[in-house]
Amino acid sequence: MKPWKTLQRETVLHFNRYLAVERHTVQLPDGQVIENWPWVIVPPFVDVLLIMEDGRALCLRQYKYGVGQVSLSTMGGMIDPGETPEQAARREMLEETGCEAAQLVPLGKYAVDANRGAGEAHLFLALGARQVQPPNSGDLEEQEIVFLSLEELRDSLLRGEFRMTSWSATVGLALAYLQAHR
Amino acid sequence: MKPWKTLQRETVLHFNRYLAVERHTVQLPDGQVIENWPWVIVPPFVDVLLIMEDGRALCLRQYKYGVGQVSLSTMGGMIDPGETPEQAARREMLEETGCEAAQLVPLGKYAVDANRGAGEAHLFLALGARQVQPPNSGDLEEQEIVFLSLEELRDSLLRGEFRMTSWSATVGLALAYLQAHR
Repeated sequence: MKPWKTLQRETVLHFNRYLAVERHTVQLPDGQVIENWPWVIVPPFVDVLLIMEDGRALCLRQYKYGVGQVSLSTMGGMIDPGETPEQAARREMLEETGCEAAQLVPLGKYAVDANRGAGEAHLFLALGARQVQPPNSGDLEEQEIVFLSLEELRDSLLRGEFRMTSWSATVGLALAYLQAHR
Repeated sequence: MKPWKTLQRETVLHFNRYLAVERHTVQLPDGQVIENWPWVIVPPFVDVLLIMEDGRALCLRQYKYGVGQVSLSTMGGMIDPGETPEQAARREMLEETGCEAAQLVPLGKYAVDANRGAGEAHLFLALGARQVQPPNSGDLEEQEIVFLSLEELRDSLLRGEFRMTSWSATVGLALAYLQAHR
Protein backbone atom coordinates (compact mmCIF):
# COMPACT_ATOMS: atom_id res chain seq x y z
CA MET A 1 0.00 0.00 0.00
CA LYS A 2 2.20 2.77 -1.32
CA PRO A 3 1.30 6.47 -1.16
CA TRP A 4 -0.27 8.22 -4.12
CA LYS A 5 1.84 10.99 -5.68
CA THR A 6 0.65 14.54 -6.30
CA LEU A 7 2.17 15.36 -9.72
CA GLN A 8 0.59 18.83 -10.08
CA ARG A 9 -1.62 21.20 -8.09
CA GLU A 10 -3.45 24.28 -9.30
CA THR A 11 -5.73 26.65 -7.37
CA VAL A 12 -9.13 26.82 -9.07
CA LEU A 13 -10.99 28.81 -6.39
CA HIS A 14 -9.76 31.09 -3.65
CA PHE A 15 -13.07 31.89 -1.93
CA ASN A 16 -11.75 33.44 1.28
CA ARG A 17 -9.63 32.39 4.25
CA TYR A 18 -12.19 29.72 5.11
CA LEU A 19 -12.20 27.94 1.73
CA ALA A 20 -10.04 27.31 -1.31
CA VAL A 21 -10.18 24.55 -3.95
CA GLU A 22 -7.32 22.98 -5.88
CA ARG A 23 -7.20 20.65 -8.87
CA HIS A 24 -4.63 17.90 -8.38
CA THR A 25 -3.04 15.55 -10.87
CA VAL A 26 -2.51 12.33 -8.94
CA GLN A 27 -0.51 9.20 -9.72
CA LEU A 28 -1.57 5.88 -8.24
CA PRO A 29 0.99 3.22 -7.19
CA ASP A 30 0.22 1.22 -10.39
CA GLY A 31 1.21 4.20 -12.55
CA GLN A 32 -2.35 5.28 -13.44
CA VAL A 33 -2.71 9.08 -13.58
CA ILE A 34 -5.90 10.91 -12.56
CA GLU A 35 -5.93 14.45 -13.89
CA ASN A 36 -8.87 16.09 -12.22
CA TRP A 37 -8.84 15.27 -8.52
CA PRO A 38 -10.68 17.89 -6.40
CA TRP A 39 -8.92 19.09 -3.24
CA VAL A 40 -10.68 21.23 -0.64
CA ILE A 41 -8.69 23.47 1.73
CA VAL A 42 -10.30 24.73 4.94
CA PRO A 43 -8.56 25.70 8.21
CA PRO A 44 -7.72 22.97 10.75
CA PHE A 45 -9.86 22.97 13.88
CA VAL A 46 -10.22 21.45 17.34
CA ASP A 47 -13.21 19.79 19.01
CA VAL A 48 -13.18 19.25 22.77
CA LEU A 49 -15.50 17.36 25.08
CA LEU A 50 -15.30 18.73 28.62
CA ILE A 51 -15.83 16.56 31.69
CA MET A 52 -16.38 18.78 34.74
CA GLU A 53 -14.94 18.10 38.20
CA ASP A 54 -18.34 16.68 39.23
CA GLY A 55 -18.18 14.09 36.41
CA ARG A 56 -20.80 15.64 34.12
CA ALA A 57 -20.06 16.46 30.48
CA LEU A 58 -20.34 20.06 29.29
CA CYS A 59 -21.93 20.32 25.84
CA LEU A 60 -23.27 23.17 23.76
CA ARG A 61 -26.66 23.48 22.13
CA GLN A 62 -26.75 25.72 19.09
CA TYR A 63 -28.18 26.28 15.62
CA LYS A 64 -25.55 25.66 12.93
CA TYR A 65 -26.05 26.76 9.32
CA GLY A 66 -24.31 23.69 7.87
CA VAL A 67 -26.58 21.41 9.89
CA GLY A 68 -29.77 23.36 9.20
CA GLN A 69 -31.12 22.80 12.69
CA VAL A 70 -30.34 23.02 16.39
CA SER A 71 -27.76 20.43 17.51
CA LEU A 72 -25.89 19.37 20.57
CA SER A 73 -22.17 19.86 20.02
CA THR A 74 -18.82 19.65 21.67
CA MET A 75 -16.99 22.95 21.77
CA GLY A 76 -14.25 23.96 19.40
CA GLY A 77 -13.07 26.21 16.66
CA MET A 78 -10.31 27.01 14.22
CA ILE A 79 -6.66 26.69 15.12
CA ASP A 80 -5.12 30.16 14.80
CA PRO A 81 -1.85 30.55 12.86
CA GLY A 82 1.11 29.77 15.15
CA GLU A 83 -1.04 27.89 17.67
CA THR A 84 -0.63 24.22 18.53
CA PRO A 85 -3.86 22.17 18.60
CA GLU A 86 -3.52 21.95 22.41
CA GLN A 87 -3.25 25.75 22.72
CA ALA A 88 -6.30 26.20 20.48
CA ALA A 89 -8.26 23.69 22.57
CA ARG A 90 -7.47 25.53 25.82
CA ARG A 91 -8.17 28.97 24.28
CA GLU A 92 -11.52 27.89 22.78
CA MET A 93 -12.51 26.19 26.03
CA LEU A 94 -11.94 29.43 27.95
CA GLU A 95 -13.66 31.61 25.33
CA GLU A 96 -16.70 29.43 24.67
CA THR A 97 -17.35 28.03 28.14
CA GLY A 98 -15.17 30.00 30.57
CA CYS A 99 -13.56 26.72 31.66
CA GLU A 100 -10.06 25.51 32.44
CA ALA A 101 -9.22 21.79 32.66
CA ALA A 102 -6.74 19.84 34.80
CA GLN A 103 -5.91 17.45 31.92
CA LEU A 104 -6.23 17.58 28.15
CA VAL A 105 -6.25 14.10 26.52
CA PRO A 106 -5.48 14.10 22.77
CA LEU A 107 -7.90 11.81 20.91
CA GLY A 108 -6.13 12.01 17.55
CA LYS A 109 -5.93 13.90 14.27
CA TYR A 110 -8.49 13.13 11.54
CA ALA A 111 -9.12 14.05 7.92
CA VAL A 112 -12.59 15.51 7.43
CA ASP A 113 -12.86 14.01 3.91
CA ALA A 114 -10.60 11.03 3.14
CA ASN A 115 -10.80 11.78 -0.60
CA ARG A 116 -10.84 15.59 -0.85
CA GLY A 117 -9.10 16.66 2.38
CA ALA A 118 -11.45 19.43 3.59
CA GLY A 119 -9.44 20.14 6.73
CA GLU A 120 -8.06 18.37 9.75
CA ALA A 121 -9.90 17.80 13.01
CA HIS A 122 -7.86 17.56 16.23
CA LEU A 123 -10.07 15.96 18.88
CA PHE A 124 -9.63 16.24 22.65
CA LEU A 125 -11.12 15.15 25.93
CA ALA A 126 -10.71 17.68 28.78
CA LEU A 127 -10.84 16.18 32.28
CA GLY A 128 -11.33 17.92 35.61
CA ALA A 129 -12.80 21.07 34.00
CA ARG A 130 -14.14 23.96 36.04
CA GLN A 131 -15.63 27.31 35.17
CA VAL A 132 -13.27 30.19 36.04
CA GLN A 133 -14.92 33.06 34.13
CA PRO A 134 -18.11 33.76 32.16
CA PRO A 135 -18.12 32.46 28.56
CA ASN A 136 -17.53 35.02 25.79
CA SER A 137 -17.32 33.14 22.50
CA GLY A 138 -17.71 35.99 20.01
CA ASP A 139 -19.31 33.40 17.70
CA LEU A 140 -22.21 34.29 15.42
CA GLU A 141 -24.33 31.51 16.90
CA GLU A 142 -26.39 31.81 20.04
CA GLN A 143 -25.11 29.04 22.34
CA GLU A 144 -26.58 27.34 25.37
CA ILE A 145 -24.42 25.36 27.80
CA VAL A 146 -25.86 21.94 28.74
CA PHE A 147 -24.57 19.57 31.44
CA LEU A 148 -25.15 15.85 30.87
CA SER A 149 -24.39 12.77 32.94
CA LEU A 150 -22.27 10.20 31.08
CA GLU A 151 -25.38 8.06 30.60
CA GLU A 152 -27.31 11.04 29.17
CA LEU A 153 -24.30 11.80 26.97
CA ARG A 154 -24.29 8.27 25.55
CA ASP A 155 -28.07 8.33 25.00
CA SER A 156 -27.87 11.70 23.21
CA LEU A 157 -25.02 10.36 21.05
CA LEU A 158 -27.06 7.28 20.11
CA ARG A 159 -30.11 9.40 19.28
CA GLY A 160 -27.93 11.19 16.69
CA GLU A 161 -28.18 14.53 18.51
CA PHE A 162 -24.53 15.50 17.86
CA ARG A 163 -25.23 16.29 14.22
CA MET A 164 -21.71 16.72 12.80
CA THR A 165 -19.30 13.84 12.17
CA SER A 166 -16.43 15.33 14.23
CA TRP A 167 -18.71 16.04 17.23
CA SER A 168 -19.96 12.44 17.21
CA ALA A 169 -16.41 11.18 16.78
CA THR A 170 -15.26 13.25 19.77
CA VAL A 171 -18.08 12.02 22.02
CA GLY A 172 -17.69 8.40 20.88
CA LEU A 173 -13.91 8.50 21.41
CA ALA A 174 -14.35 10.18 24.81
CA LEU A 175 -16.83 7.53 25.99
CA ALA A 176 -14.50 4.74 24.80
CA TYR A 177 -11.58 6.43 26.59
CA LEU A 178 -13.51 6.80 29.84
CA GLN A 179 -14.62 3.18 29.69
CA ALA A 180 -11.06 1.94 29.02
CA HIS A 181 -9.66 4.02 31.92
CA ARG A 182 -12.32 3.26 34.52
CA MET B 1 -32.68 29.53 18.52
CA LYS B 2 -34.26 30.30 15.16
CA PRO B 3 -32.94 29.05 11.82
CA TRP B 4 -30.74 31.24 9.63
CA LYS B 5 -32.23 32.20 6.27
CA THR B 6 -30.55 31.70 2.91
CA LEU B 7 -31.42 34.93 1.02
CA GLN B 8 -29.38 34.14 -2.12
CA ARG B 9 -27.25 31.34 -3.54
CA GLU B 10 -24.90 31.46 -6.51
CA THR B 11 -22.69 28.70 -7.93
CA VAL B 12 -19.07 29.86 -8.00
CA LEU B 13 -17.44 26.54 -8.92
CA HIS B 14 -18.79 23.44 -10.61
CA PHE B 15 -15.72 21.21 -10.40
CA ASN B 16 -17.34 17.88 -11.30
CA ARG B 17 -19.99 15.56 -9.88
CA TYR B 18 -17.94 15.17 -6.70
CA LEU B 19 -17.62 18.87 -5.87
CA ALA B 20 -19.34 22.22 -6.35
CA VAL B 21 -19.11 25.46 -4.36
CA GLU B 22 -21.81 28.07 -3.81
CA ARG B 23 -21.72 31.58 -2.36
CA HIS B 24 -24.65 32.14 0.01
CA THR B 25 -26.11 35.35 1.37
CA VAL B 26 -27.31 34.43 4.85
CA GLN B 27 -29.52 36.26 7.33
CA LEU B 28 -29.10 35.62 11.04
CA PRO B 29 -32.09 35.66 13.45
CA ASP B 30 -31.09 39.17 14.67
CA GLY B 31 -31.36 40.53 11.11
CA GLN B 32 -27.60 40.66 10.44
CA VAL B 33 -26.79 39.73 6.82
CA ILE B 34 -23.60 37.88 5.82
CA GLU B 35 -22.95 38.19 2.11
CA ASN B 36 -20.12 35.82 1.42
CA TRP B 37 -20.82 32.49 3.13
CA PRO B 38 -19.03 29.55 1.44
CA TRP B 39 -21.09 26.42 0.83
CA VAL B 40 -19.53 23.13 -0.28
CA ILE B 41 -21.58 20.51 -2.13
CA VAL B 42 -20.37 16.91 -2.28
CA PRO B 43 -22.45 13.72 -2.65
CA PRO B 44 -24.00 12.15 0.47
CA PHE B 45 -22.40 8.91 1.59
CA VAL B 46 -22.75 5.96 3.95
CA ASP B 47 -20.28 4.46 6.43
CA VAL B 48 -20.97 1.01 7.88
CA LEU B 49 -19.27 -0.95 10.63
CA LEU B 50 -19.86 -4.68 10.20
CA ILE B 51 -20.08 -7.09 13.11
CA MET B 52 -19.74 -10.67 11.84
CA GLU B 53 -21.77 -13.61 13.13
CA ASP B 54 -18.76 -14.62 15.29
CA GLY B 55 -18.80 -11.20 17.02
CA ARG B 56 -15.69 -9.76 15.37
CA ALA B 57 -15.74 -6.41 13.56
CA LEU B 58 -14.86 -6.29 9.87
CA CYS B 59 -12.75 -3.25 9.00
CA LEU B 60 -10.76 -2.20 5.97
CA ARG B 61 -7.14 -1.12 5.79
CA GLN B 62 -6.30 1.15 2.89
CA TYR B 63 -4.30 4.15 1.70
CA LYS B 64 -6.51 7.21 1.22
CA TYR B 65 -5.35 10.30 -0.67
CA GLY B 66 -7.19 12.72 1.64
CA VAL B 67 -5.55 11.14 4.68
CA GLY B 68 -2.08 10.88 3.14
CA GLN B 69 -1.38 7.54 4.78
CA VAL B 70 -2.70 4.03 5.36
CA SER B 71 -5.71 3.98 7.71
CA LEU B 72 -8.14 1.58 9.20
CA SER B 73 -11.65 2.41 8.01
CA THR B 74 -15.22 1.29 8.11
CA MET B 75 -16.64 0.51 4.70
CA GLY B 76 -18.83 2.85 2.72
CA GLY B 77 -19.30 4.97 -0.32
CA MET B 78 -21.52 7.42 -2.13
CA ILE B 79 -25.29 7.08 -2.15
CA ASP B 80 -26.33 6.65 -5.79
CA PRO B 81 -29.19 8.79 -7.17
CA GLY B 82 -32.53 7.15 -6.31
CA GLU B 83 -31.05 4.99 -3.54
CA THR B 84 -32.01 5.23 0.12
CA PRO B 85 -29.11 5.34 2.59
CA GLU B 86 -30.07 1.79 3.71
CA GLN B 87 -29.92 0.50 0.12
CA ALA B 88 -26.54 2.16 -0.40
CA ALA B 89 -25.24 0.61 2.83
CA ARG B 90 -26.29 -2.90 1.76
CA ARG B 91 -24.95 -2.45 -1.80
CA GLU B 92 -21.59 -1.11 -0.64
CA MET B 93 -21.32 -3.88 1.96
CA LEU B 94 -21.77 -6.51 -0.73
CA GLU B 95 -19.42 -4.81 -3.22
CA GLU B 96 -16.60 -3.96 -0.81
CA THR B 97 -16.67 -6.96 1.49
CA GLY B 98 -18.95 -9.57 -0.13
CA CYS B 99 -21.09 -9.53 3.03
CA GLU B 100 -24.78 -9.53 3.85
CA ALA B 101 -26.10 -8.63 7.31
CA ALA B 102 -29.07 -9.84 9.34
CA GLN B 103 -29.74 -6.36 10.76
CA LEU B 104 -28.82 -2.83 9.76
CA VAL B 105 -28.96 -0.34 12.66
CA PRO B 106 -29.13 3.33 11.60
CA LEU B 107 -26.74 5.44 13.71
CA GLY B 108 -27.90 8.81 12.39
CA LYS B 109 -27.37 11.45 9.74
CA TYR B 110 -24.53 13.95 10.18
CA ALA B 111 -23.24 17.11 8.48
CA VAL B 112 -19.59 16.76 7.51
CA ASP B 113 -18.96 20.49 8.10
CA ALA B 114 -21.40 22.30 10.40
CA ASN B 115 -20.53 25.64 8.77
CA ARG B 116 -19.99 24.85 5.07
CA GLY B 117 -22.08 21.70 4.58
CA ALA B 118 -19.66 19.51 2.60
CA GLY B 119 -22.01 16.56 2.42
CA GLU B 120 -24.05 14.31 4.65
CA ALA B 121 -22.83 11.12 6.31
CA HIS B 122 -25.36 8.36 7.02
CA LEU B 123 -23.80 6.01 9.57
CA PHE B 124 -24.78 2.38 10.17
CA LEU B 125 -23.96 -0.64 12.27
CA ALA B 126 -24.51 -3.99 10.50
CA LEU B 127 -25.11 -6.94 12.83
CA GLY B 128 -24.92 -10.65 12.07
CA ALA B 129 -22.88 -10.14 8.92
CA ARG B 130 -21.52 -13.04 6.87
CA GLN B 131 -19.52 -13.28 3.68
CA VAL B 132 -21.65 -14.62 0.78
CA GLN B 133 -19.39 -13.76 -2.17
CA PRO B 134 -15.87 -12.45 -2.84
CA PRO B 135 -15.45 -8.66 -2.52
CA ASN B 136 -15.27 -6.65 -5.74
CA SER B 137 -15.20 -2.97 -4.82
CA GLY B 138 -14.11 -1.42 -8.10
CA ASP B 139 -12.47 1.30 -5.96
CA LEU B 140 -9.16 2.88 -6.93
CA GLU B 141 -7.65 1.97 -3.57
CA GLU B 142 -6.08 -1.37 -2.74
CA GLN B 143 -8.03 -2.64 0.27
CA GLU B 144 -7.26 -5.25 2.90
CA ILE B 145 -9.99 -6.78 5.07
CA VAL B 146 -9.14 -6.93 8.78
CA PHE B 147 -11.11 -8.71 11.53
CA LEU B 148 -10.87 -7.22 15.03
CA SER B 149 -12.31 -8.29 18.38
CA LEU B 150 -14.41 -5.56 20.05
CA GLU B 151 -11.54 -4.88 22.45
CA GLU B 152 -9.08 -4.56 19.55
CA LEU B 153 -11.60 -2.29 17.80
CA ARG B 154 -11.79 0.01 20.82
CA ASP B 155 -8.01 0.07 21.21
CA SER B 156 -7.53 0.90 17.50
CA LEU B 157 -10.13 3.66 17.79
CA LEU B 158 -8.36 5.16 20.83
CA ARG B 159 -4.98 5.00 19.06
CA GLY B 160 -6.51 7.25 16.36
CA GLU B 161 -6.16 4.58 13.66
CA PHE B 162 -9.52 5.36 11.99
CA ARG B 163 -8.16 8.55 10.45
CA MET B 164 -11.33 10.23 9.12
CA THR B 165 -13.95 11.89 11.35
CA SER B 166 -16.91 9.86 9.99
CA TRP B 167 -15.06 6.52 10.42
CA SER B 168 -14.25 7.36 14.05
CA ALA B 169 -17.82 8.54 14.59
CA THR B 170 -19.16 5.27 13.19
CA VAL B 171 -16.91 3.12 15.36
CA GLY B 172 -17.54 5.23 18.48
CA LEU B 173 -21.31 5.14 17.93
CA ALA B 174 -21.22 1.39 17.25
CA LEU B 175 -19.28 0.67 20.46
CA ALA B 176 -21.71 2.85 22.46
CA TYR B 177 -24.65 1.03 20.84
CA LEU B 178 -23.22 -2.41 21.62
CA GLN B 179 -22.54 -1.39 25.20
CA ALA B 180 -26.06 0.00 25.66
CA HIS B 181 -27.64 -3.18 24.18
CA ARG B 182 -25.51 -5.76 26.00
